[in-house]
Amino acid sequence: MNQQQASMPRVFAPVITPFTADLAVDAPRLVAFCKWLVTQRAGLAIFGTNSEANSLSLAERIELLDALVDGGVDPRFMMPGTGASALPDAVTLTRHAVARGCAGALVLPPFFYKGVGEDGVYRYYCEIIEKVAASQLRLYLYHIPQLSGVAITASLIARLRQKYPKTIAGLKDSSGDWENTRRMLEEFPDLQVYPASEALLERALPLGAAGCISATANLQPRLIADYIDQWSMPRGRQINGQLTAVRLRMQNTVMIPALKAVVAHYAGDPAWTTVRPPLSAAAPAEVQKLLADLDGMGFAMPGIAAAGEVKQ
Amino acid sequence: MNQQQASMPRVFAPVITPFTADLAVDAPRLVAFCKWLVTQRAGLAIFGTNSEANSLSLAERIELLDALVDGGVDPRFMMPGTGASALPDAVTLTRHAVARGCAGALVLPPFFYKGVGEDGVYRYYCEIIEKVAASQLRLYLYHIPQLSGVAITASLIARLRQKYPKTIAGLKDSSGDWENTRRMLEEFPDLQVYPASEALLERALPLGAAGCISATANLQPRLIADYIDQWSMPRGRQINGQLTAVRLRMQNTVMIPALKAVVAHYAGDPAWTTVRPPLSAAAPAEVQKLLADLDGMGFAMPGIAAAGEVKQ
Repeated sequence: MNQQQASMPRVFAPVITPFTADLAVDAPRLVAFCKWLVTQRAGLAIFGTNSEANSLSLAERIELLDALVDGGVDPRFMMPGTGASALPDAVTLTRHAVARGCAGALVLPPFFYKGVGEDGVYRYYCEIIEKVAASQLRLYLYHIPQLSGVAITASLIARLRQKYPKTIAGLKDSSGDWENTRRMLEEFPDLQVYPASEALLERALPLGAAGCISATANLQPRLIADYIDQWSMPRGRQINGQLTAVRLRMQNTVMIPALKAVVAHYAGDPAWTTVRPPLSAAAPAEVQKLLADLDGMGFAMPGIAAAGEVKQ
Repeated sequence: MNQQQASMPRVFAPVITPFTADLAVDAPRLVAFCKWLVTQRAGLAIFGTNSEANSLSLAERIELLDALVDGGVDPRFMMPGTGASALPDAVTLTRHAVARGCAGALVLPPFFYKGVGEDGVYRYYCEIIEKVAASQLRLYLYHIPQLSGVAITASLIARLRQKYPKTIAGLKDSSGDWENTRRMLEEFPDLQVYPASEALLERALPLGAAGCISATANLQPRLIADYIDQWSMPRGRQINGQLTAVRLRMQNTVMIPALKAVVAHYAGDPAWTTVRPPLSAAAPAEVQKLLADLDGMGFAMPGIAAAGEVKQ
């Protein structure tokens, strides 16, 4: 973890993306929500899987990042997803993230063609790095084989690290496979490894994990940040109990619509419930039950109401 | 098949896409190759899976279609792939295909999110159709679950056909599963169904298949077109034998780099061998063996040398 910049948060939210009723991206709502997340000690992994990033056009991703930085959100807290199915799109997005001063860029492997072989994926990442050609680039590899169909293997990481030791900064491991996370932490001690759930922190932090990038960091970022600070202390165990209850309940939902329904409720802003096809909004009865369950756990999103006061 | 326009070809090539040495798209080579395909009685399913379409940016797909139409290729022979992971991209590309007068648009389901449910996919296609809002649009659904991860089911087709009986014109079935193709042909007699291989024509044509959209139509389009005309005659059986030998040999390769290597050889134009990452070019030894095998079968691409005379 020794390469991580001191200013970087250790918990990142793969920030959910608001849409207007006609399914356009809603920049003012995203800016307000990101500002709230930053007050809660979260970094901003905008354009991640939970952001419906692969349902956004290139122009929308550029427009939203510009709106955030121009709107006063500190890019040193941002690790935008800049991966794409098409190499030129990944180059454009990664270049833009660097140009706007983002702390890093989280890059999916190309995700349409399957069984492409490590050489092709290696060349894909090399092309991005060579074409962006920026010494400030900190590239985080994104391992999520259940959706991308293309794995980020240890041998791929080793090859890329050898060629670009400074640029290849980290790995988000969304496999949910602890054995894989453990192996990455042990084989690459200088790599910033982020498991995709705070559930793995208890085992990952002692091995040097950088933090986590987790869906539920949209809901309880401060608690996760506090846990990362205090995991080895008695208070840490107490926090972990609170974290776990909410996380387990959220894991029992269709995550993206559920996250949006929860934010809509606590922000008092129903516009947040909109998802873009192919996703579907959560069923009202399920939302009601989820909210009742969270309420019963004493769940809260302190200060989120202010972020709900965006009117267009 | 009764909806098919009389002018439409019955065999479509998912046209391979040429790249320059620095991995940019190569419009002049694509125009020349498409002109050759048309002389060989093929329709142009540009921007299909074999076209590396999901490795092309939105701007590149627009630029290449413009180059083709402006370069004199008849858009009534074209069925560009206009699907994308992101809804706005699919809308933009489909609108552009209609604006340029293409015979149809072949639309992948959104292919990043998995397990999204039929409702979400249904709304995705509805949004495209509503936002393109063009009575001329003929939309062909693209079933290729092994790569997209999202199936085009019979119930989805039925719902879409009920709402848009004129717009939902057909289906490309790339599942390779004859039972699925058969079911689609029987359940939707008015739908133009294209299996993804000429191997299925023998069974599909008697059930009313519109034709096929096949990788090897990049190599032997005229022979496939002739077969479709004469399948029920003794000459048809003879053609089928020739078709099958080449197809079986090609199926024993990594298809896209192999197609490009064969075209490069017969066109006398090595530039064709370039693929874009994440794909990798075919190994020279394998190419040599493939070319020797094809030569031994008497395989030829009549007139292709002229298409190889594009110099930049």
